[in-house]
Amino acid sequence: MAGNSIGKAFVVTCFGESHGKCIGVVIEGCPPGLPLSEQDIQIELDKRKPATSSISTQRIEEDKAEILSGVFNGYTTGAPICIVVWNKNIDSEPYELVKEKPRPGHADYTAHLRYDGFNDYRGGGRFSGRITVAYVMAGAVAKKLLKTLNVEILAHTVQIGSIKVSKKISYEEIRNNVYKNDVRCADLHMAALMVEEILKVKRDGDSLGGIVECIALNYPAGIGDPIFDSLDADIAKIMFDIPGVKGVEIGAGFTAASMKGSENNDAYIIKGGAVLTETNNCGGILGGLSNGMPIKARIALKPTPSIRKKQKTINLKHMQETELTLSGKFDPCIVSRAVPVVEACMATVLADHALRLGKIPQTKAYCDKL
Amino acid sequence: MAGNSIGKAFVVTCFGESHGKCIGVVIEGCPPGLPLSEQDIQIELDKRKPATSSISTQRIEEDKAEILSGVFNGYTTGAPICIVVWNKNIDSEPYELVKEKPRPGHADYTAHLRYDGFNDYRGGGRFSGRITVAYVMAGAVAKKLLKTLNVEILAHTVQIGSIKVSKKISYEEIRNNVYKNDVRCADLHMAALMVEEILKVKRDGDSLGGIVECIALNYPAGIGDPIFDSLDADIAKIMFDIPGVKGVEIGAGFTAASMKGSENNDAYIIKGGAVLTETNNCGGILGGLSNGMPIKARIALKPTPSIRKKQKTINLKHMQETELTLSGKFDPCIVSRAVPVVEACMATVLADHALRLGKIPQTKAYCDKL
Amino acid sequence: MAGNSIGKAFVVTCFGESHGKCIGVVIEGCPPGLPLSEQDIQIELDKRKPATSSISTQRIEEDKAEILSGVFNGYTTGAPICIVVWNKNIDSEPYELVKEKPRPGHADYTAHLRYDGFNDYRGGGRFSGRITVAYVMAGAVAKKLLKTLNVEILAHTVQIGSIKVSKKISYEEIRNNVYKNDVRCADLHMAALMVEEILKVKRDGDSLGGIVECIALNYPAGIGDPIFDSLDADIAKIMFDIPGVKGVEIGAGFTAASMKGSENNDAYIIKGGAVLTETNNCGGILGGLSNGMPIKARIALKPTPSIRKKQKTINLKHMQETELTLSGKFDPCIVSRAVPVVEACMATVLADHALRLGKIPQTKAYCDKL
Amino acid sequence: MAGNSIGKAFVVTCFGESHGKCIGVVIEGCPPGLPLSEQDIQIELDKRKPATSSISTQRIEEDKAEILSGVFNGYTTGAPICIVVWNKNIDSEPYELVKEKPRPGHADYTAHLRYDGFNDYRGGGRFSGRITVAYVMAGAVAKKLLKTLNVEILAHTVQIGSIKVSKKISYEEIRNNVYKNDVRCADLHMAALMVEEILKVKRDGDSLGGIVECIALNYPAGIGDPIFDSLDADIAKIMFDIPGVKGVEIGAGFTAASMKGSENNDAYIIKGGAVLTETNNCGGILGGLSNGMPIKARIALKPTPSIRKKQKTINLKHMQETELTLSGKFDPCIVSRAVPVVEACMATVLADHALRLGKIPQTKAYCDKL
Repeated sequence: MAGNSIGKAFVVTCFGESHGKCIGVVIEGCPPGLPLSEQDIQIELDKRKPATSSISTQRIEEDKAEILSGVFNGYTTGAPICIVVWNKNIDSEPYELVKEKPRPGHADYTAHLRYDGFNDYRGGGRFSGRITVAYVMAGAVAKKLLKTLNVEILAHTVQIGSIKVSKKISYEEIRNNVYKNDVRCADLHMAALMVEEILKVKRDGDSLGGIVECIALNYPAGIGDPIFDSLDADIAKIMFDIPGVKGVEIGAGFTAASMKGSENNDAYIIKGGAVLTETNNCGGILGGLSNGMPIKARIALKPTPSIRKKQKTINLKHMQETELTLSGKFDPCIVSRAVPVVEACMATVLADHALRLGKIPQTKAYCDKL
Repeated sequence: MAGNSIGKAFVVTCFGESHGKCIGVVIEGCPPGLPLSEQDIQIELDKRKPATSSISTQRIEEDKAEILSGVFNGYTTGAPICIVVWNKNIDSEPYELVKEKPRPGHADYTAHLRYDGFNDYRGGGRFSGRITVAYVMAGAVAKKLLKTLNVEILAHTVQIGSIKVSKKISYEEIRNNVYKNDVRCADLHMAALMVEEILKVKRDGDSLGGIVECIALNYPAGIGDPIFDSLDADIAKIMFDIPGVKGVEIGAGFTAASMKGSENNDAYIIKGGAVLTETNNCGGILGGLSNGMPIKARIALKPTPSIRKKQKTINLKHMQETELTLSGKFDPCIVSRAVPVVEACMATVLADHALRLGKIPQTKAYCDKL
Repeated sequence: MAGNSIGKAFVVTCFGESHGKCIGVVIEGCPPGLPLSEQDIQIELDKRKPATSSISTQRIEEDKAEILSGVFNGYTTGAPICIVVWNKNIDSEPYELVKEKPRPGHADYTAHLRYDGFNDYRGGGRFSGRITVAYVMAGAVAKKLLKTLNVEILAHTVQIGSIKVSKKISYEEIRNNVYKNDVRCADLHMAALMVEEILKVKRDGDSLGGIVECIALNYPAGIGDPIFDSLDADIAKIMFDIPGVKGVEIGAGFTAASMKGSENNDAYIIKGGAVLTETNNCGGILGGLSNGMPIKARIALKPTPSIRKKQKTINLKHMQETELTLSGKFDPCIVSRAVPVVEACMATVLADHALRLGKIPQTKAYCDKL
Repeated sequence: MAGNSIGKAFVVTCFGESHGKCIGVVIEGCPPGLPLSEQDIQIELDKRKPATSSISTQRIEEDKAEILSGVFNGYTTGAPICIVVWNKNIDSEPYELVKEKPRPGHADYTAHLRYDGFNDYRGGGRFSGRITVAYVMAGAVAKKLLKTLNVEILAHTVQIGSIKVSKKISYEEIRNNVYKNDVRCADLHMAALMVEEILKVKRDGDSLGGIVECIALNYPAGIGDPIFDSLDADIAKIMFDIPGVKGVEIGAGFTAASMKGSENNDAYIIKGGAVLTETNNCGGILGGLSNGMPIKARIALKPTPSIRKKQKTINLKHMQETELTLSGKFDPCIVSRAVPVVEACMATVLADHALRLGKIPQTKAYCDKL
């Protein structure tokens, strides 16, 4: 059975390992006639690159996208689009250690069991955060498709460790600030505190997690496939497919659990001829269907499991308890790098569902607006 | 495109509407030879019935399961199992109102858009909480399959409105207490407070949400289908398919976002020859794969949107703002009724993934333990 | 893993056994707003009924369609449509014999192995021709959908045993004659000979097979999903899902193997502003895509395996060779009853592919022509 | 919607175009621990290469397989296996002609409609026989998996144009002779006549079709997923996905239509403790399930549509009738090159179904026999 594909109308299939030849993606279902270039993919990939600062890993990943199929004369053809990034700057040596001593918080142990010891453990192999390169490439195509519907996707860091953004953030602040600071935070003041916090734990050989918020604007109302392919269910699923994600909430999320119905219900109003809601506790989704309001999700990421601090683990070969001290290039916090990945995942689901219902049609007319 | 099916090896397809003839489910992929009776289904369905107390809806649902196919001489045959519950005690009259005036917080408006006005709006139609009857019936079969692996699934209410269970709850307390009180809470003291809270908002014509925790014990390690069919992703997806769910977290969940790596990582230990972890912040899942520890999820439910309090809404026909005052039988809190549904959904995903990897085989030998 | 569903946009899931409670089908993906009644289904079901003549089985099947979900106020709602036929007139007694002695040519032996002895063997269970009731019900919905595109589907018997229709048959003859004779043959002269042939083998306790041709008119050009969901591949697949089918050919089919390219290629011409081909050896499909010409398939059915003549078989319990003499109600030839089934299967595939590409849209506008 | 994937447990996704950068395939679901090298793939690819004789195209395709992912230290890891062949020796110039003048018998016209004029028309693009490189690569992996069950797959040419193999061919003759002659025929005498026939039509600028027979030995009994994923249905589907296929029959196929039940039914016998059948008219499949006898299919291929003879066609730009005279490198007969493709397709379906039922398990134990 295969778990490397997602989507029904916009189908994304991933392949590749952290220290293998490449990370790749095959995208099926993109209608013909969409202008698409390697540069379109590159722009999104570049957002995922580690910040050129002290807070990030030193593995330099060039990450140049190469389109192998599905694009001809600058337009998609309707055939599957394969895009790869060739892996470079690989140093697999430190991973010989984890072959026998699984890192706590990582998939080393579970992958060893699941794949009967044959999994490629180098760099985390198929379980590395590096596979999100594929998600971002698929998301780049999805984003371009969604542009034909005028949909905009905005993600930003709202928490790192104990530092939380508490003031209300405008869409404009997200647009302007996120890619101007190393932690992808729209509140520049908190961004500075977050960097400080990261540097502190980095010195301790420790790591931090955080929360990313993602908003999709202008997504048409009435899209989704209940019961089981509810829009929120599909968003939650793909977000949990990002390594390190431990929680997803839509709209008011867990807060809704302590609200009363009269507080949580979003009253309908009419404004400029359009049906809106006064509040948006539902996060733009009711009954698994978009309601035309901004779609809002919050995604919780655990702290990077790779830390320099000494940890208790076991030796799988000798089946005995032991200790592990990791050396190598680890990000003390990957929340900032998850921001473009979360955007890409949101785009992938929204494009898939828009295509399912023919909201993005199969003829070139659909991209007249581009 | 169709969203009424879920699963790959254990495939569940739902049909039926709240005020239609029936709620039904077709289950494919159950191996032959499993002893299965209508009574097995009924036990689970009965858990979902409204409490016979003042806190619940007065719609009396008999909800008798009838197996239409796939079972012969008391055993599953390997053919699709269709099970239905015939709807009775239906009063659709109050719903003529919401045909034009969508209820805030409900799918009335989005369903109207999505289905071009042809959706069956009676009782919420396909968007009613009543469709979870189908989830419970599928879950009953899944649970029986999982018993062959000795897997046990426990769900319980941990929060209703502002009342939260704060003390540590043992598995034994869950087993003993949950179905002994009307709110399905394992802490009997808090249960009493929750009932009080519900009665209070009920008097105000308002409603409450809450949080359900679900634990799966003894699920074998090394199960799951990364990347996109990660076990946690599939759990999150199915939980979001339950009407009213706004958040899902696995293990430490959102709390993990403010922990350090050294705190969040679960150290491996060996106990009685088995590999365990000291803590279980990962909630039994690492890299999308089970690690043998209890699988833990928490599910946030919003307050029931149907409230008696006057609300602002719009008239879809005249496209103008208006008010809505609902009368009818509404649960002021559906959290307790979600408990068996959450259990069923967890069972469905776990059975599906165990079947995918052949952990439950296709021969009768698998149910020798029953 | 589950094999009881087919289609991607128009998804058909079957359940039920020959001697179980019912034969049922769940249809997902039918857009909202299609006028649909039980009578629409019944018309197609009635075509499948055994001829009221001496050539057919004496099992009287009332076969009344009952819609359980997905239709409200006479229109489809967009929710899954479940339709059942309740089994009646069941006599399972003769099948106790085949439990141990598998009938040659039937699935008795293979089903016993596949389902580890738990399959419902009564009346062939899940392997009975009776399951095609479900195909016909799904096809009835598909046909109605296709009417919105003006598509017409015509099937007719072209061979029974050694009696073959050799003269060219017009569409008008198919429309007029097929349901006027017991063998569903458009050539009334050959129809009479076929009946004679059947009566002869019936007297001998033997059976006959035959060939059904199916034509779809007015299906729009440019529909299909190569590579693997080619229109011809999907037609072939569903036809082989009809019990007894042993061969499928499209257009010139096997004859094309002995033609030259210059003979087989269909020259393009323009007629009345439309692109047509002079010949139609490709059977309306090129590269897995419709070309606007009539879609033509021929389906070979083996002779009914249930015969009264004594046959060699084995006793599965004692694992020794033995003999088998069947008594019971058997059709000496099921070709005529396959005709509406073949039509239904063709309709199911064509509707699925038209929906995939949005050629039948998701709004009620699509059925303005009905 | 996407049609570039096939299979449920062994999932094959293809990408690439005839004159694009590469032809590629992603294979999901191959269990970990299978020894696999590029050489394993190359052996199969080499069988597909044009014969080095006068009967074939002069396009020299090096076709070197490169494994991009899913294999580590010589074994499959359980992760998706991506394999590509880089296209070389491309001359797209002749195809500028067919951009406006669709070749009769080709997908030029239908692809133009389906993809709104954006399809890559060079070399037939996605509709070229060249895409079968991907099928062969997937089949190579499938064959290796099937070896663990001792399954052997044999295909051979039984007809080219009017030259038919009439004598009974032994498995030994197929094994020994097929890859020793340019037309992949097991009857060396007929092979010589076939070559002669091809040379004759080649001189005339014409082309020929033919029939390939495919046999799978030792496939275990009781495998298949009725109703809709019947083994024969899935075989038929994948065979029709090979460009140029117009007919598929299983066992006696179309001949069964004129047999009597008493002739067509295969009597069960016991031989050496095993259940066999005296004849094999069913072609190893009953009720969509394997019965342990050799699986037999026959596949009809139409003559190559690309011929040098002048043909009638239309000019799509000016919408008027015109003529077309092709120049370029065309195979006058592709039947021989279809032989390894048919083998690969058969292997892909059989491996998929064996994996679905766990007949090939998920642990390395399964390949102990290799």
